[in-house]
Amino acid sequence: MDAIYNDLKNGKIKSYNLETIIFEKTGNWEEANTKAAKLRLRFLEEKTGKKFEAIKSHYTDTSDSEKNTTGIEQQIGGAVVPLGFAGPLKINGDYVKGEFYIPVATNEAALIAGLSRGISTVNKSGGIKTVLKHDGMARAPLIETPDIEYAKNVSDEIKAKGELFQSMKVEAEKESRVTKLIEIQPFQLGRFVHLRFVFQTGDSMGMNSATRYAANAIKFLITKYPEVKLKSLTANLCSDKKNTHINVLLGRGKSIETEVIIPREIIEKTYGIKIEDLVELNQLKNNQGSALAGTISGFNANVANTIAAVFIATGQDAAQITESASAFTRAEIKDDKLIFGCTFPCLEVATVGGGAGFKTAKECLEILGCSGPGKNPGDNARKLAEIIAAAATAQDLNLLGAEAHGYELADSHISLARGK
Amino acid sequence: MDAIYNDLKNGKIKSYNLETIIFEKTGNWEEANTKAAKLRLRFLEEKTGKKFEAIKSHYTDTSDSEKNTTGIEQQIGGAVVPLGFAGPLKINGDYVKGEFYIPVATNEAALIAGLSRGISTVNKSGGIKTVLKHDGMARAPLIETPDIEYAKNVSDEIKAKGELFQSMKVEAEKESRVTKLIEIQPFQLGRFVHLRFVFQTGDSMGMNSATRYAANAIKFLITKYPEVKLKSLTANLCSDKKNTHINVLLGRGKSIETEVIIPREIIEKTYGIKIEDLVELNQLKNNQGSALAGTISGFNANVANTIAAVFIATGQDAAQITESASAFTRAEIKDDKLIFGCTFPCLEVATVGGGAGFKTAKECLEILGCSGPGKNPGDNARKLAEIIAAAATAQDLNLLGAEAHGYELADSHISLARGK
Amino acid sequence: MDAIYNDLKNGKIKSYNLETIIFEKTGNWEEANTKAAKLRLRFLEEKTGKKFEAIKSHYTDTSDSEKNTTGIEQQIGGAVVPLGFAGPLKINGDYVKGEFYIPVATNEAALIAGLSRGISTVNKSGGIKTVLKHDGMARAPLIETPDIEYAKNVSDEIKAKGELFQSMKVEAEKESRVTKLIEIQPFQLGRFVHLRFVFQTGDSMGMNSATRYAANAIKFLITKYPEVKLKSLTANLCSDKKNTHINVLLGRGKSIETEVIIPREIIEKTYGIKIEDLVELNQLKNNQGSALAGTISGFNANVANTIAAVFIATGQDAAQITESASAFTRAEIKDDKLIFGCTFPCLEVATVGGGAGFKTAKECLEILGCSGPGKNPGDNARKLAEIIAAAATAQDLNLLGAEAHGYELADSHISLARGK
Amino acid sequence: MDAIYNDLKNGKIKSYNLETIIFEKTGNWEEANTKAAKLRLRFLEEKTGKKFEAIKSHYTDTSDSEKNTTGIEQQIGGAVVPLGFAGPLKINGDYVKGEFYIPVATNEAALIAGLSRGISTVNKSGGIKTVLKHDGMARAPLIETPDIEYAKNVSDEIKAKGELFQSMKVEAEKESRVTKLIEIQPFQLGRFVHLRFVFQTGDSMGMNSATRYAANAIKFLITKYPEVKLKSLTANLCSDKKNTHINVLLGRGKSIETEVIIPREIIEKTYGIKIEDLVELNQLKNNQGSALAGTISGFNANVANTIAAVFIATGQDAAQITESASAFTRAEIKDDKLIFGCTFPCLEVATVGGGAGFKTAKECLEILGCSGPGKNPGDNARKLAEIIAAAATAQDLNLLGAEAHGYELADSHISLARGK
Repeated sequence: MDAIYNDLKNGKIKSYNLETIIFEKTGNWEEANTKAAKLRLRFLEEKTGKKFEAIKSHYTDTSDSEKNTTGIEQQIGGAVVPLGFAGPLKINGDYVKGEFYIPVATNEAALIAGLSRGISTVNKSGGIKTVLKHDGMARAPLIETPDIEYAKNVSDEIKAKGELFQSMKVEAEKESRVTKLIEIQPFQLGRFVHLRFVFQTGDSMGMNSATRYAANAIKFLITKYPEVKLKSLTANLCSDKKNTHINVLLGRGKSIETEVIIPREIIEKTYGIKIEDLVELNQLKNNQGSALAGTISGFNANVANTIAAVFIATGQDAAQITESASAFTRAEIKDDKLIFGCTFPCLEVATVGGGAGFKTAKECLEILGCSGPGKNPGDNARKLAEIIAAAATAQDLNLLGAEAHGYELADSHISLARGK
Repeated sequence: MDAIYNDLKNGKIKSYNLETIIFEKTGNWEEANTKAAKLRLRFLEEKTGKKFEAIKSHYTDTSDSEKNTTGIEQQIGGAVVPLGFAGPLKINGDYVKGEFYIPVATNEAALIAGLSRGISTVNKSGGIKTVLKHDGMARAPLIETPDIEYAKNVSDEIKAKGELFQSMKVEAEKESRVTKLIEIQPFQLGRFVHLRFVFQTGDSMGMNSATRYAANAIKFLITKYPEVKLKSLTANLCSDKKNTHINVLLGRGKSIETEVIIPREIIEKTYGIKIEDLVELNQLKNNQGSALAGTISGFNANVANTIAAVFIATGQDAAQITESASAFTRAEIKDDKLIFGCTFPCLEVATVGGGAGFKTAKECLEILGCSGPGKNPGDNARKLAEIIAAAATAQDLNLLGAEAHGYELADSHISLARGK
Repeated sequence: MDAIYNDLKNGKIKSYNLETIIFEKTGNWEEANTKAAKLRLRFLEEKTGKKFEAIKSHYTDTSDSEKNTTGIEQQIGGAVVPLGFAGPLKINGDYVKGEFYIPVATNEAALIAGLSRGISTVNKSGGIKTVLKHDGMARAPLIETPDIEYAKNVSDEIKAKGELFQSMKVEAEKESRVTKLIEIQPFQLGRFVHLRFVFQTGDSMGMNSATRYAANAIKFLITKYPEVKLKSLTANLCSDKKNTHINVLLGRGKSIETEVIIPREIIEKTYGIKIEDLVELNQLKNNQGSALAGTISGFNANVANTIAAVFIATGQDAAQITESASAFTRAEIKDDKLIFGCTFPCLEVATVGGGAGFKTAKECLEILGCSGPGKNPGDNARKLAEIIAAAATAQDLNLLGAEAHGYELADSHISLARGK
Repeated sequence: MDAIYNDLKNGKIKSYNLETIIFEKTGNWEEANTKAAKLRLRFLEEKTGKKFEAIKSHYTDTSDSEKNTTGIEQQIGGAVVPLGFAGPLKINGDYVKGEFYIPVATNEAALIAGLSRGISTVNKSGGIKTVLKHDGMARAPLIETPDIEYAKNVSDEIKAKGELFQSMKVEAEKESRVTKLIEIQPFQLGRFVHLRFVFQTGDSMGMNSATRYAANAIKFLITKYPEVKLKSLTANLCSDKKNTHINVLLGRGKSIETEVIIPREIIEKTYGIKIEDLVELNQLKNNQGSALAGTISGFNANVANTIAAVFIATGQDAAQITESASAFTRAEIKDDKLIFGCTFPCLEVATVGGGAGFKTAKECLEILGCSGPGKNPGDNARKLAEIIAAAATAQDLNLLGAEAHGYELADSHISLARGK
């Protein structure tokens, strides 16, 4: 390895080629990856004059010997986020029923304490109901046409769902085992058209396949409309990793509703407030405050905390927290009970592919009973989405209860962060 | 430990009390935490009939014996995200100058490859310039007043920056060593007023102190205006962990501008496109596409990828990806060169406190040369913000270059994810 | 009349009953209306000690003797907005072909001058192309259901477009001669569902009939789903008289695209700028500036001026300027020409009903050749929408040309407003 | 005149030169304008083969012989909007106290009936309170600088409110009698900076003077920073005639709060509903519905109706309905009463200049007691803004009351539009 290291240092070999070079000698991807990571870290240690023991000791292999892939490029080790749990949380959903321990990866003291209290409040009320409204991953290539009339005609023919749509569907699905094209939604802006493809992608998050399959369909479209050009495989109408209203209205990934019905006395005992106080704060904060702040989907107290924490625990794409943390929190009183719930328009999750198969993530998914592909394709991912939605609702409930107390938020953070 | 475990199982002791119970026997927080985590994991293993070796083996202690705190509640171990690096990236900023290896924690194949190519393009152009426009963490308590006139009078007196403001500043800063109150921005809605406090919080992210110190100032305000009531310590005007336009306009955390000037031939060689193509795609995608999608701050190709990846590597609060991944990407041609850059209105980062002190995060910050407090308070956090902004700009540049090629995005993801 | 006036003054009769009281004596609505207006004005004159000759002399009767209606309530006379024209403008659209003088009601000096210059620029380039993408007026009643599952089931059944949808369509259309139900778009939020009905309403703007017919369909829905309650006939998802993104994405009223292809030299001669300057300003102002300002649909220079002016001239509902003035302005260079155009997602116009039949409005519609019902129902309203879109595009073109000059805007306003 | 008409027809003279040509013969602007309008109308009549008697008979002169201006260009006559009134409305505001008849120009039956009922409800509750929070008209020129650092330095120096700001203020005010520069708010995007100038403009709406005076200040800035270039006198950060969040947050024109406290029984008697029903509908519609629809400032039931109607009656710039119709409607119960009110962030109105001096508009302003300049500059415009806000609040109250009844909206529109 020292020879290779010297070559690396002298620039004779490129850092990103290390795995391949070592593999050629050893014939084993896992070994090649592990050694490459160590060499890189040694290089960084020499450059900086520091020791990176923790990074090294938390190395996780990301290669896949079946698929013959090296995994994450330029790896040096692992980043650890402290992992705890909350619950169990009682959920009665479309794809999930039972009690679940929620794995939570977070750097923030007080987060799990708050979530736990929210879960306890929910459980005392008999648990939380969840409903899946929509399941579809979107990718929207942008096509260029000669003029606004041509653009309109292409859009109209696709919308008509006739022969052209059917052929594009066939093309889109031809390389797929699981993924199905559900819809193509054209949005014309001048002579350009965004074609928002919506796929059901089984238990994977689906961006990569959606991109590839949409491209295949576009290639076919161009054979029929030769004046159409592909401008870009995406031009932000998808919308991936941006917080947008199109995702709110039309959904992306999973769209989930949650609902918990809470007797008056449970709120009073837990938070020392009346249910009217909580409803009022929801109105002042999650509706009026958010409206004044100028937001597209931030009509909630803080669903991002739970969504981020479970995303990291279960190996999701963390950049998708940007749009997945969209939620509309509702609180109303009916029959003297608090009806509390959230609408999550675009939770994007997976139980296979990407990080879902990496070690700690896989174990976290096992804690939830939804690691790997579902019995029916997509059932595990839908289950995971409902669990995350349920947990985030419990946390939003708790935060509103705590904040309706005025000074509690500051005190709890401080007491927890400072050790009482 | 077995006795304690049995008590845990039988419900005689609460899971969240484990640390304290063990500490009472051992007198050592680290030991208590480690053991508590193991007991909880054993409990989960028994419940699920599975083994969670990876979670256990990546346990990271989060206690702080100096402060006598247990750290993250209900811990069971660690969640690992694969860690690689890109770079070094040449940056010439207000608080950062030099070449930096960027630690990147991600589950997504192709991300580091793309970032690396973007960095290479930037470096060939002489590096990237960064400017810090604003540094201030906001917390906005909501106060209730008797009527709209009273609300206006309170707002006006605070805005006048006279005696009342000065006294509130003194109160806000009285428990602080580093944190300074910069401004109080009142936003009236009826008889309610959101008071958006803006603090400079040194090298910590600052939410906890901002919350506590704002509460202290409000307590003082109420002594002067006894009819004022604190309704909630926050009502979403801050805005924390929500994507809002108030953060875009007024900034939150650090507001950064980036700029790189790229000779025509570098783009042509790297991406096989003309600089005009890249400028056009920026216009079609990051401006028109995003506008049509309905977004507040998603006028970029994909800054979220890099921001999320460096946030996780360096121990930031992952829920703040929601607003930190706000960016306006610009591309124009001047003197036959591409001027490329991004505006990041609200990057929220820390080099002390929270996860910044945990093991792998601390090492990642050391790779960047900004672990712990800066020489001048805040300099390290500002440096980190500029580095993240620079790296995210490099990635956005690369993505636009790649997407301007039409089919490349799909191909690169697939080839990388599947190992050619 | 004096006796009636005294009764009015003494409060014995209510001002809003005047028409009916006089009609009972005269048996003629027009006479009753005219006299009632005079009495009211006399009353106001006495109250204020002023003379309102202009208001009186511009009285316009709004009664409809065929329908036996009194028209606008509490009328006192007429408000005059100065009326001019611009053009003729060459348009080649889906429902309009030829040259049109544009009637423009405005208080703003310089507006018609600017519009005229824009039209001249368009005509020199061979005229403007318009395309109608969508025609549908929306009204969205809000229904309440017992819980989130019930809400989802109702939504799904309506979306399925099966028997329930067909029956609701029959009910919605049963009182209509012209209006057709096109779609029902359900948007669930918790246990509530907004049902966005989309109608084609012929040449009337259609809000009143859409409201009534949607109500009829809801009444039927409730017979099938007795646990459904009508909460409100609208809850802002329509969206009427509010500027919203749902109208941008899904359209409301007419959705129009416009396009004009302008040779380089025409822009240079008219504005003394290069086409590159105009494209750059469109990017800096209508894309980046608007994005930074935080807007949903204001990605244009100033389409509101023309839209408001033609709306008032032709008797449209002026409150709908709020959303009708939505536009995305585009400018690009292709084959050394400027391609310029706008996307108008939600222009709401009528040529029958409301103010379209009042005197000056009717004449303005005659100038445009689209007064009253079209040969095919809706053709006149669609023609009017395309004309307004074309004219607003010409004005936006002119404004960008002028503003790219830096100081011209201020100078032109001032010179025109002050008489050179 | 016939000779001139023939020249017009033959294209020997341009239509827009008619006033000047006739003035040269008659020496009287009013006569020249009147005759020019008639010639143009004759021309249109000949072109279309129709008679435009109404347009002719409602001609209103817009010339100003003192300033020697011809007024609106290309005039042909007048557009009439039916004018009625509602009220009197009891208002207790900062710049208005008493009872006011509200002049309302509208084509929509039912509008005045609804407004009248809202006013009656308000009056029975003792009238409405209004507060003016902000008064400032904004114009935001865009400047170009060499790079992001230069841009930041210019921004910072202006923000510092030192010598540079003071000198720019002197320049901005040098041609003004009344207008004062209040603030310059810099918003940097890359190497470009939007400088949002805020002026108090007395009783005029102020766009023209704001534009001119901002230009003067920029000219001075460039003498100090020679590398700065004026890119455009506006780039949509103002924001004029676009619906934007910057206007919501920072205000534009007048920012007004309104509040009325309504005893429970008044709502019950008038609308047959409980105050709880109205509060619930406000929440479901104006908060949740609007949030889901994706809006920046449309958190109200329908303030646009009243704002548009009074704007047209009083000669305001109708294109500014786009942003002036921004409102956040609030409803809450306190001490068993309904507290109802609206926040209007950006009402842009004038009592001098533009249409405010035209005949029927002037009379409508006289009905309100605020025609022409106020005793203190600006007092009349502020009064007008408070009156409009008060009336729009009354209408929003009434609409919510009516809609909480479910089917009433449809029925009232239909009964009124169809004559019972």
